Amino acid sequence: MSKILFLKLLFIFLIITLASGRIVDDISFHNPQNLAGQMVKTRNSISVEKVGVNKPTPEEEKDPEFWRSVAREQVLRNLEKQKLNVNKAKNIIMFLGDGMSLSTVAAARMLKGQRKNHTGEEDSLSFEKFPHAAFSKTYCANAQVADSACTATAYLCGVKGNIVTIGVSANVEYNNCSASMDPANQVSSIAAWAQKAGKSTGFITTTTLTHASPSGTYAHVANRLYESDADVMSFGQDPATCMDMAHQLVTQEPGRNFNIMMGGGMAKFLPKNIKDFHGNNGIREDGRNLLSTWQAMHPGGVFVSNREELLNVNTSNVSHIMGIFNTKAMDYYAVSDKSQQPSLAEMTETALNLLQRNEKGYFIFIEGGHIDTAHHENKAGISLDETLEFDKAIQLARDMTDPEETLIVVTADHGHGLTINGYPGRGTSILGLNQHDLGADGLKYSTLSYALGPQQFIDEHGQRVDLDGIPRDIDSIYPSYVKSNDGHHSGEDVGVFASGPFDHLFTGVLEQNAIPHLMAYAACIGDGLTMCDDNVEE
Amino acid sequence: MSKILFLKLLFIFLIITLASGRIVDDISFHNPQNLAGQMVKTRNSISVEKVGVNKPTPEEEKDPEFWRSVAREQVLRNLEKQKLNVNKAKNIIMFLGDGMSLSTVAAARMLKGQRKNHTGEEDSLSFEKFPHAAFSKTYCANAQVADSACTATAYLCGVKGNIVTIGVSANVEYNNCSASMDPANQVSSIAAWAQKAGKSTGFITTTTLTHASPSGTYAHVANRLYESDADVMSFGQDPATCMDMAHQLVTQEPGRNFNIMMGGGMAKFLPKNIKDFHGNNGIREDGRNLLSTWQAMHPGGVFVSNREELLNVNTSNVSHIMGIFNTKAMDYYAVSDKSQQPSLAEMTETALNLLQRNEKGYFIFIEGGHIDTAHHENKAGISLDETLEFDKAIQLARDMTDPEETLIVVTADHGHGLTINGYPGRGTSILGLNQHDLGADGLKYSTLSYALGPQQFIDEHGQRVDLDGIPRDIDSIYPSYVKSNDGHHSGEDVGVFASGPFDHLFTGVLEQNAIPHLMAYAACIGDGLTMCDDNVEE
Repeated sequence: MSKILFLKLLFIFLIITLASGRIVDDISFHNPQNLAGQMVKTRNSISVEKVGVNKPTPEEEKDPEFWRSVAREQVLRNLEKQKLNVNKAKNIIMFLGDGMSLSTVAAARMLKGQRKNHTGEEDSLSFEKFPHAAFSKTYCANAQVADSACTATAYLCGVKGNIVTIGVSANVEYNNCSASMDPANQVSSIAAWAQKAGKSTGFITTTTLTHASPSGTYAHVANRLYESDADVMSFGQDPATCMDMAHQLVTQEPGRNFNIMMGGGMAKFLPKNIKDFHGNNGIREDGRNLLSTWQAMHPGGVFVSNREELLNVNTSNVSHIMGIFNTKAMDYYAVSDKSQQPSLAEMTETALNLLQRNEKGYFIFIEGGHIDTAHHENKAGISLDETLEFDKAIQLARDMTDPEETLIVVTADHGHGLTINGYPGRGTSILGLNQHDLGADGLKYSTLSYALGPQQFIDEHGQRVDLDGIPRDIDSIYPSYVKSNDGHHSGEDVGVFASGPFDHLFTGVLEQNAIPHLMAYAACIGDGLTMCDDNVEE
Repeated sequence: MSKILFLKLLFIFLIITLASGRIVDDISFHNPQNLAGQMVKTRNSISVEKVGVNKPTPEEEKDPEFWRSVAREQVLRNLEKQKLNVNKAKNIIMFLGDGMSLSTVAAARMLKGQRKNHTGEEDSLSFEKFPHAAFSKTYCANAQVADSACTATAYLCGVKGNIVTIGVSANVEYNNCSASMDPANQVSSIAAWAQKAGKSTGFITTTTLTHASPSGTYAHVANRLYESDADVMSFGQDPATCMDMAHQLVTQEPGRNFNIMMGGGMAKFLPKNIKDFHGNNGIREDGRNLLSTWQAMHPGGVFVSNREELLNVNTSNVSHIMGIFNTKAMDYYAVSDKSQQPSLAEMTETALNLLQRNEKGYFIFIEGGHIDTAHHENKAGISLDETLEFDKAIQLARDMTDPEETLIVVTADHGHGLTINGYPGRGTSILGLNQHDLGADGLKYSTLSYALGPQQFIDEHGQRVDLDGIPRDIDSIYPSYVKSNDGHHSGEDVGVFASGPFDHLFTGVLEQNAIPHLMAYAACIGDGLTMCDDNVEE
């Protein structure tokens, strides 16, 4: 460093330090007592005035009878739940909103209402009307805040494993492939349990067929990124002894028997010298064309790669459907080519039409995977839109099935650090700025923000940038506190919502790994307790 | 400004702008497509490796049978809940964790376990073991994110009002006192309903007797800050026609009949020329000594002002207890003078001993008020400690009462923008820094942070300060994104946890104002539906 530059920098440092006087304040992690007093005073005087005014009240809600009527209906609705549904569950549909924190559920419900030009807060997602709800504790064996891999092991296999691993016990450490290939460390999923009982099985996802969440139905891996043999090698493992997930899905139990597999990620199934149906090369190094393998194994099955083909499937005479609608994950629905990629509801409808033909019933896992992907990008608008697509698929599934015989369970794997901030007035756009409160800097802030993510909107003086007037659309990135490549998961509980046989067992605070055992209880599958046992109290 | 200073500042501005090159990036609220691609790539490669390693797994949890056993016990426990408790609730205890977001519940559970030298995530607060749980939608009539005033109207009076108002319908706007004094706009609380049925009543809080939450049991005000006549005047109202809350509590129905009132805030009840029991002057301008008034009204009652007096009360021959243990709100329990101020559990124990003498039963409202106060200061350690004090009081109440006749409902009024961030390993100190992940700046971040609050720990260059090595204690302030005088509430749902008669009605997603109607149903009080009705389906 030149002497002149050094002096310039020293000069700048001194000027800033003296002029701002902020350093001493800001690095004091310990709070001086007088600051506490000052804050309490502020909250008890100025803030309340600010919070109380200029907020619109819907006219009909001014009458207290409006709310008494809402409550009366709730009491009557909950009294109906006293008639327990203790039928054996013929079918189980498990819906997984990846990263669908309870803040996401609340914000999505508001967006749903606001899209109808209502205030929004009073609206409900389809599964919020389900009779019963519970909390799910999402930590994994070695993780206070979990990922989608170890949580899939929990809510599909009934066992908590280590973060980043799938379908294996916590004996298996990250990337220890030989441990994961040891059958003693592999744990089976409720999809396998259902197959043993003669039920049809499958999964749908908006991500890839080999993504962490759906892989919990079939895979056993020490690393969720073993999606193809090329991926296995990139982590220093030998695909000859360390089988990748695409390979496991097509050739191993229980994946090889799945009647339904739908989502994205075609590249993982094709050799690198073969173009997929979407114009891109596969990425496999072993020369395997797993799609051909699958088609040879299932002569009564059909392979589809776009929406039209999917909607044209005659589900009454097809045994299996494999649908892969993109080279990588499917696109965010809001910005996708809807002539090529089906919605989650469309995939769900076709799948259920096929599965309903099995008199012994079915188990299907259906994931709204991009709720999480968009949160990772801090794209709250996309995430909420994906939540509403997820919502539609659930409504359709409930409408297509009979609660007397089909148990639907909706949950999330983990939260995301999304918060609904401050005191926005009723009906304030959930994707906009808080119109009723400002930061100490006099600037508005967005009602939604994240703990971590790519964009802080802080200038080089440490001041927030004015967000008012900066264009926003559904694809916009929302602000976060800590700069990070992407948004991170969060560790609070997520919701579980249930409708159908034994839905009343989904209540209270659950360890996440109890969920498949509760579903299995209702359907008389698996090796644990079931409602078909002679004496459950044994 | 001198010319030299101006040139110096211009020079600094130019150097910083040119050197950092950050402005253009940071103000782009709209995300360029390539950034999205980059983030997805990052998440699918580097991050997973970082997340997967160096995290400890508890030895016994490596065996999948450990988790199957956990799940089996959960199934058996939930099967027991099929035996519905349809007794009439003689007693109702409502516990309110002010600002106790579900992130607070999860973090407090971890702290509880970690104080026993366990990893923590697997622990449970007392009410998390309650048989049933539900979600509560907390918005108010004119507020997407609510305050403790309008929510008190919802969960105590069964009607949603406007933010900052208490015990009045949404016909009453902020600070419109004449509207709030109109009986047509006043809504009665479950405490009043219980009194009509001959039950004993009361409340306990760690804040002031006139604070927003407990005031929902007795007050009707257009502004939660009308705590004394002096406060009423400070908002431009005439106390002669606009009665303050301390005055309402002591002289009006139902407060005047309360058998139990405990908390802080003595100054609101005494004239400014009279010293209270804690050495400070009252603040009333009207010369009223409401404590003397109360004592004259209740010759069989006892007034106590410190812990020893409280513990010495002979509850077998006292009709009423008014306990005020500080001039303002009670102190945070962790830093209080425990010889002077009782714990929430101690107040609860004395109160229940008195209330249990009434053969017709009782209703009591018990608030952990400083969970919220500490969150407002972003003092996460204090807030979690207060949550654990709240937890102890609930455990004691459940131990002291019979679930066959006493319904306990635990809930929160609203959330706080607290998040549990990133991918900390199992057992990582919940009050410390994430040891398994860094921000993009290479610095650690705290597992807990807030959306808004007083301290950003951002230096004058917009960079985060290194928190590692800065001393932390239970009183420390945690970082937040948007600078604000205090932390703000958040708008996601909160939990409802129930144990006792008709606890099974507390399930699914509830509007917050349904809660008192569900309690009233179980206890056969109030004007709505009750289990004593001949035909509830009428």
